[in-house]
Amino acid sequence: MKKILNEPAAYVDEMLEGLVAAHPEFYARPHPRVIARPGGAVKDKVGIVTGGGSGHLPVFTGYVGPGLLDACAIGDVFSSASAEQIADAMKAADGGAGVLRLYGNYGGDVMNFDMAGETLEVEEDFESTSVVLTDDVASGPPEEAAKRRGVAGMVYAFKMAGAAADRGGDLAAVTATAQKAADACRSLGIALTPCTIPQSGKPTFEIDDADMEMGMGIHGEPGIWRAKLKKADEIADEIWERLQADRPINKGDRVSVLVNSLGATPPEELYILYRRFAKHLADCGASVVMPLVGRYAASMEMAGATLTVCQLDAELEELLKAPASCAFWQVS
Amino acid sequence: MKKILNEPAAYVDEMLEGLVAAHPEFYARPHPRVIARPGGAVKDKVGIVTGGGSGHLPVFTGYVGPGLLDACAIGDVFSSASAEQIADAMKAADGGAGVLRLYGNYGGDVMNFDMAGETLEVEEDFESTSVVLTDDVASGPPEEAAKRRGVAGMVYAFKMAGAAADRGGDLAAVTATAQKAADACRSLGIALTPCTIPQSGKPTFEIDDADMEMGMGIHGEPGIWRAKLKKADEIADEIWERLQADRPINKGDRVSVLVNSLGATPPEELYILYRRFAKHLADCGASVVMPLVGRYAASMEMAGATLTVCQLDAELEELLKAPASCAFWQVS
Repeated sequence: MKKILNEPAAYVDEMLEGLVAAHPEFYARPHPRVIARPGGAVKDKVGIVTGGGSGHLPVFTGYVGPGLLDACAIGDVFSSASAEQIADAMKAADGGAGVLRLYGNYGGDVMNFDMAGETLEVEEDFESTSVVLTDDVASGPPEEAAKRRGVAGMVYAFKMAGAAADRGGDLAAVTATAQKAADACRSLGIALTPCTIPQSGKPTFEIDDADMEMGMGIHGEPGIWRAKLKKADEIADEIWERLQADRPINKGDRVSVLVNSLGATPPEELYILYRRFAKHLADCGASVVMPLVGRYAASMEMAGATLTVCQLDAELEELLKAPASCAFWQVS
Repeated sequence: MKKILNEPAAYVDEMLEGLVAAHPEFYARPHPRVIARPGGAVKDKVGIVTGGGSGHLPVFTGYVGPGLLDACAIGDVFSSASAEQIADAMKAADGGAGVLRLYGNYGGDVMNFDMAGETLEVEEDFESTSVVLTDDVASGPPEEAAKRRGVAGMVYAFKMAGAAADRGGDLAAVTATAQKAADACRSLGIALTPCTIPQSGKPTFEIDDADMEMGMGIHGEPGIWRAKLKKADEIADEIWERLQADRPINKGDRVSVLVNSLGATPPEELYILYRRFAKHLADCGASVVMPLVGRYAASMEMAGATLTVCQLDAELEELLKAPASCAFWQVS
């Protein structure tokens, strides 16, 4: 896959330069690999910090903004940020009411977020909590749900935790809400093509021109099966059934749905998937609230899509609908 | 390229079903190939209608919404809507103050929009005007600017004409503003890979794995040169120079810039391009107002990007910043 870039080693930093230059109203860069709110931490509000590898825009950095996140630590493409960078992001997010670390369940991230939290607690009497996001049902059976990876469902957790912090909850309350939002989300996706990591110049995986893989991770982690590309309705049906088997949606439930492009897959195809998925939801008697269709959590130019269902209670629905803004998403 | 779809012949209609199902607050479908505002035409407001081939989301259909367009006639992928569909869209957009036809300069579109306008004027005493969008500098020399095609700059015309209609201008005033917005925009892009039309199953063009094409059109129309893929900064520099040669930006000018993905090209790469382009604008002493970076006018999964400069006067800047919303773009 061809990429528009300069030196591969400069990819992340030049991307961040452009991001901040284009949207100074949303993003400041207090450290080379930290994006934070331009006005500094919001005083007396719980700060929310995330982080992770680059290459997933809008995840993670893009979701810094009012009603969303306060700071993000940014690693190289598909690599965790360092503990030091995460600690810098935590400090940038600290308005004096503590900081929630909210991030996807990947080995390097877990290690570095934990280390950053411990370092700051010991050295600076800094109060922080963490919620680890694990919405990808393909990456572990229900009895090992804690091993699952975080994918597009992370966006719901960012939105709802951000709104909970904005309405003035304390650290324990915001953490509990973030955990509830995380628990409410289930995702499953398909991959059609890999993407290329700039520094290696190699695709993240190989796949036959005629094939798809059900449940493949956003970095090319192995999925559930690989076979000839199926029709959109067959794909939506299988994802629906697998998500229903994991956590059923029942008559009267209120849910939000995110049909997410992993990168190259255009919105036209997402709407074809949404059409079928919405039929399943209607058939089972659920109500869809604020469906999201677009590129919310990607892997550069990878082709494929994920479907996420977020089961709402009254609190989560209110938090989902609360105002929020960043360069990639406006809720008003 | 792999696509998530069912029967290729159903691609457009299933996409529209999904679009309307996901966003009923923005889109209604009064005819199978017409998307319009769900509340019907806005009484006593000039209606703005567009149309064109499918496969370019958010262009064209996506930009129906408050502060933007009133209706859109939808053709098959990369094919004009019919004159009858356009006439239906015009009727859906008609609030009694006349209708502006605002669309890209492509042969089939021009023919069918003209025919629709003439038919309604003769049969129904229907007042309408048209502005044809021609921002792509690669598609004709300055002395033949009227032959140029419309590309991503169309989005500025949609936004500014929509705001002009919203503030209550009459048909002549909205038409004049739309023409001014159209005249203020210049675009130039590069193509890296083709996309595949669902019904033919064939790529729109062929290009070597190592090559790019400067100035190629969004349907694969021939560009200015084809050669080995250059670095991002070299690409941004050449586009800047060619746009400056066509219509110079000078010290003190106020401009908006749109760095647009043609589909598969991820936002990371757009920000790398923006970073360099913003430097040129700063070096020449221009001020950038509300830069746009993202997927605003695409060709399904085509890889590549376009850069558009829109030179603002006080009126156009006010119209650009006026509130607008659709499923793909919120300005508040």
